[in-house]
Amino acid sequence: MQFHSDNCGPAHPSIMAALTQANEGYAPSYGEDEIMDEVRRRLRSLFEAPEAAIYLVATGTAANVLGLSTLTRPYQTIFCTPHAHIEVDECNSPEFYTGGAKLTLVGDTDKMTPEALEAAIGKWPEGDVHTAQRGPLCLTQVTERGQVYTVDELTALSDVAHRHGLPVFLDGARFANAIETLGCSPAEMTWKAGVDALSFGGTKNGCLDVEAVIFFDPAHAWEFELRRKRAAHLHSKHRYLSAQMKGYLNDDLWLELARKSNAACAYLAARLREVPDCDFTHPPQANMIFATLPRETHQRLIAAGAGYGLFGGPLHGGDRAEPLLCRLVCDWSMTHAQIDEFIACARLQAAVS
Amino acid sequence: MQFHSDNCGPAHPSIMAALTQANEGYAPSYGEDEIMDEVRRRLRSLFEAPEAAIYLVATGTAANVLGLSTLTRPYQTIFCTPHAHIEVDECNSPEFYTGGAKLTLVGDTDKMTPEALEAAIGKWPEGDVHTAQRGPLCLTQVTERGQVYTVDELTALSDVAHRHGLPVFLDGARFANAIETLGCSPAEMTWKAGVDALSFGGTKNGCLDVEAVIFFDPAHAWEFELRRKRAAHLHSKHRYLSAQMKGYLNDDLWLELARKSNAACAYLAARLREVPDCDFTHPPQANMIFATLPRETHQRLIAAGAGYGLFGGPLHGGDRAEPLLCRLVCDWSMTHAQIDEFIACARLQAAVS
Amino acid sequence: MQFHSDNCGPAHPSIMAALTQANEGYAPSYGEDEIMDEVRRRLRSLFEAPEAAIYLVATGTAANVLGLSTLTRPYQTIFCTPHAHIEVDECNSPEFYTGGAKLTLVGDTDKMTPEALEAAIGKWPEGDVHTAQRGPLCLTQVTERGQVYTVDELTALSDVAHRHGLPVFLDGARFANAIETLGCSPAEMTWKAGVDALSFGGTKNGCLDVEAVIFFDPAHAWEFELRRKRAAHLHSKHRYLSAQMKGYLNDDLWLELARKSNAACAYLAARLREVPDCDFTHPPQANMIFATLPRETHQRLIAAGAGYGLFGGPLHGGDRAEPLLCRLVCDWSMTHAQIDEFIACARLQAAVS
Amino acid sequence: MQFHSDNCGPAHPSIMAALTQANEGYAPSYGEDEIMDEVRRRLRSLFEAPEAAIYLVATGTAANVLGLSTLTRPYQTIFCTPHAHIEVDECNSPEFYTGGAKLTLVGDTDKMTPEALEAAIGKWPEGDVHTAQRGPLCLTQVTERGQVYTVDELTALSDVAHRHGLPVFLDGARFANAIETLGCSPAEMTWKAGVDALSFGGTKNGCLDVEAVIFFDPAHAWEFELRRKRAAHLHSKHRYLSAQMKGYLNDDLWLELARKSNAACAYLAARLREVPDCDFTHPPQANMIFATLPRETHQRLIAAGAGYGLFGGPLHGGDRAEPLLCRLVCDWSMTHAQIDEFIACARLQAAVS
Repeated sequence: MQFHSDNCGPAHPSIMAALTQANEGYAPSYGEDEIMDEVRRRLRSLFEAPEAAIYLVATGTAANVLGLSTLTRPYQTIFCTPHAHIEVDECNSPEFYTGGAKLTLVGDTDKMTPEALEAAIGKWPEGDVHTAQRGPLCLTQVTERGQVYTVDELTALSDVAHRHGLPVFLDGARFANAIETLGCSPAEMTWKAGVDALSFGGTKNGCLDVEAVIFFDPAHAWEFELRRKRAAHLHSKHRYLSAQMKGYLNDDLWLELARKSNAACAYLAARLREVPDCDFTHPPQANMIFATLPRETHQRLIAAGAGYGLFGGPLHGGDRAEPLLCRLVCDWSMTHAQIDEFIACARLQAAVS
Repeated sequence: MQFHSDNCGPAHPSIMAALTQANEGYAPSYGEDEIMDEVRRRLRSLFEAPEAAIYLVATGTAANVLGLSTLTRPYQTIFCTPHAHIEVDECNSPEFYTGGAKLTLVGDTDKMTPEALEAAIGKWPEGDVHTAQRGPLCLTQVTERGQVYTVDELTALSDVAHRHGLPVFLDGARFANAIETLGCSPAEMTWKAGVDALSFGGTKNGCLDVEAVIFFDPAHAWEFELRRKRAAHLHSKHRYLSAQMKGYLNDDLWLELARKSNAACAYLAARLREVPDCDFTHPPQANMIFATLPRETHQRLIAAGAGYGLFGGPLHGGDRAEPLLCRLVCDWSMTHAQIDEFIACARLQAAVS
Repeated sequence: MQFHSDNCGPAHPSIMAALTQANEGYAPSYGEDEIMDEVRRRLRSLFEAPEAAIYLVATGTAANVLGLSTLTRPYQTIFCTPHAHIEVDECNSPEFYTGGAKLTLVGDTDKMTPEALEAAIGKWPEGDVHTAQRGPLCLTQVTERGQVYTVDELTALSDVAHRHGLPVFLDGARFANAIETLGCSPAEMTWKAGVDALSFGGTKNGCLDVEAVIFFDPAHAWEFELRRKRAAHLHSKHRYLSAQMKGYLNDDLWLELARKSNAACAYLAARLREVPDCDFTHPPQANMIFATLPRETHQRLIAAGAGYGLFGGPLHGGDRAEPLLCRLVCDWSMTHAQIDEFIACARLQAAVS
Repeated sequence: MQFHSDNCGPAHPSIMAALTQANEGYAPSYGEDEIMDEVRRRLRSLFEAPEAAIYLVATGTAANVLGLSTLTRPYQTIFCTPHAHIEVDECNSPEFYTGGAKLTLVGDTDKMTPEALEAAIGKWPEGDVHTAQRGPLCLTQVTERGQVYTVDELTALSDVAHRHGLPVFLDGARFANAIETLGCSPAEMTWKAGVDALSFGGTKNGCLDVEAVIFFDPAHAWEFELRRKRAAHLHSKHRYLSAQMKGYLNDDLWLELARKSNAACAYLAARLREVPDCDFTHPPQANMIFATLPRETHQRLIAAGAGYGLFGGPLHGGDRAEPLLCRLVCDWSMTHAQIDEFIACARLQAAVS
């Protein structure tokens, strides 16, 4: 009954097998390994981007802040939503990597709108030396509230950014889940929709620790390499990153695992509708659910050993009657049995009270 | 015949087995996994330091610059040798992580002397607002030229630093090799010799990608955690770092692997003495050899597919007669057969010329 | 008719005289001059703070970001209003000086409320390594919209910050104007109200370029000195900063000049009430007025050579009927004649239309 | 008898007069003042550089680190001598402003040689992601030991830098003194000799606090403006910087003041030759003298109230017989009477001992 995050489950056996297979004899270090050559070819092919510059790092934070900082000057501001991971969950990592760029919070909704973006850009007048200068747009797909931008929505947002000459970065920690939801191609969800660079997440979707950073314009390549090295994110035994990514791309494993986690989440959503007083704050679209439950339901679930993110106040604050918001995430390894056990525990409430 | 670096060989099967064993079911992320609890206990015991703060990261650069920057203020200077990895091989990573601290190069020898350290510290007057302020001493053990400080040497250097109120950090990328050479305990080579914090390397010695950072004074713990997160080096699926380190500590595997690489290096050194005009610039003491060979010997070796670091000028600069310096590194997996093949190729020279 | 800013007027003759008087013979550099000793004594006396650490710099930005950054760690967030000068007018200077700290925007009003501050602090959970850590509260007095916090309001805000263990910094670019409005003592408006450190502005109030930074806790002194030097803000011929500040403190010139600018502003406010369709968005309380005027009025004023800040859209956007917001600032040198001329021009509208 | 520095003397009356003249009525802030327009025109004319981008700041440190950091990326290294002001006297300011670039110390002499520069550049292999990347050459003219590069020497050094694609920055804190020594034009000593950007010092040569930064390639202009603002070095009441620089340029005052200080220094040098056991470590070429004197001479001079820089050990270390090195600097206001008094005191020694 563990729904804390998709970083709490195991790696897929095929990824482990790829690691073991790579663990033979000598291999050049620092990204010169042959497996990386293959990874580069396959990602370029997958993204229909034969010129793309492609790199691997071991954490999602690194992929995003290294990618973003390559597109940002220290006197600029990045545009993102108030919920953006880079704003609320990274302990000032974007500010550190960019040398002190600012984050401008756009609108107050989970999915950014073109109007809100236009207004936020307008907050910083062009050519005024006193203010932060306009910098990249950063979008998260799947969003931090489990929503998926359509290709049209992405395109509309990119259009706003590009009209102002600003690059677009996509935080793709859950890239595969979004592709699985939309049924489009990686190219359609990225460069064809105006995305200039992105992180392509593996860690949350069945790998141990690997993320790709992709620039469609290879002019950023060398600066990125220097930034990665300087940030201590260039792995010496790089083959183990390459091997994970190769295993992840093999036989479309990345899509298969996203299909599993999305399907598990859809099943969880369906079953949660049986739970009294359970309300979704956002429609489940990928592998995350945001729902409110009565305080008593939470207390019982947590007492029974269930795990998930909990927002909105102390669990045992007796004088507060409002329900609490929870985040439930499914990874590829989530089973119907675990979900059923969770639902059974949650539904007890109805019987009891 | 690959002697490029100890980061080019495979991981030891026991490490892979530990990874596989850890890959079961749910585990809390970000260092809250149970395996990390065990790693912490075992490293504290190994170092006889029950209060030590202990963390894992995936690269040696990260271990060193995160550890060092926790001990350094941005207006200070770090003291290290001109060959120090943090000076010559990290693309300004220490400067980035410290927010702009300076590196003061001490002396001109591979192993720092107390006299040179005293002189370098004296270069920066105390309490002068105009100059860099004195900061930590950073020593590399095994040094970048394959030398091993004795415990007395470490103690003498730490004494100088401590007399000036400066902390001592040990870059222990090849910590195990040094312990194997000295035959002392980890405590004797660290806190008993005045070391305040260190990196304890696993990557070069049979792991995939794991290094421990150890502070003997736990007062640094929280700042380190914030710095690690901010630098994007806190792994979400942390269990895979923990598992590697656990496997590394099991049955003293770390020592056994260092014994193998040191022994291979000793064998290589012995055989190199058979090669005409081969001169060691530094006495081999751990798992690295620095030796000069005639240009022709290099040309033949490299043509035959041998790999190793090469310093001191173009290989084919025909008008330059002086021999070239090479660095030969052995990891735990190096075999006598590979060494014999290398030596045979190197000795051909004698026969031919 | 120039109301652009209080940094557009001349320096007061007494300040010029103090400069000339200081320009005799030899003086030690870098703050060791005797005039600075006197400045230190007098500011300590003025603030009833015999232990305070006191420094001079030449720009208001420097005073604020050096002062603030001494109180902030790079993984923390500063709390300020959305209008705060450090947020909107400093080209990421706070982020640069702090090494990448974040600014959290509190509430949506010009004057911060304790409730909004409490809510903003609560946004960043304590002890969570993933998020920005809580850092200093930064208040601007006079605010960016010309408002003055009462001593009780300051105290209430400081209390919230201190309850969470956070220091309080006061951006006092218009400190004198606030004191003149409140009629309290500098001590009452600062440390007695919970302010830990502040900038005490001279530049906007009749000096050429001098601001004091004051820490009531001298424990910050040495770090500030290093930060000032490192930031290139330690003046070699420091006597000229000292002399300005000495002249500013002589015979309460600082208060007299604030009285002049506040009085001019009050007169301007009174006369603006005669202008048709002129509405104050904030009640004038010091030396700045924020008011809306019809677009035609602006066009006529600007055509006539008047100068002031203009917000809210293009002046000649013909299809937009709403009035535009302007900022009018009076410095010590503003005369009734200039104001009368401005009002006459503004009132023409009534006659014409 | 104060020879501490050329920042300890008064400003020239003409500079004060220019300040007073500028102190009339309204002036646009932040560099939009009309005086700055005139300064820009005159400096472009003086440097025969009609396209040059020209800015003013208030400290020499700011001029140098802002100028340099505009030419440097954070993963690069700046090349300078071991005595360079930016290395030894700026409390890590270059590292701060560049976001963590490194300083590579070239050779071991006061004036850099092309051979030493070539060797230092060669230390950092091109295109190696692991090392610091090659960045700008920074030369100081007059050097920190009072020496003046000839135009040919500057050209030879610039040629080395340019051959490697590296820009050349000139720290011209004592620019006027060097011009006075060489008798060449500003253009000949800068862009005609390969200098890409420079600081043009006023503070040490009779101003209160003003330095110009000049880029011959205006492509750097906007980035410099953002960096200056972000660093809190954009003065609001900018007219007072402009006025100083205008006064400094009027009637070649800058050259006249340098002529005075160089002449005073030449007189001091001539008279020092009368002092027993006084040896120059560097031939006096501008307005600074480096000379050794017996310890007793120093003791007598300092007891008599003389002031100057003292290197090389404690003054009263009785067991150390070697002479101490002193730095004696003359500014424009130094008189023969002061020098004579100093010499008389120094020569007493001969009489006594």
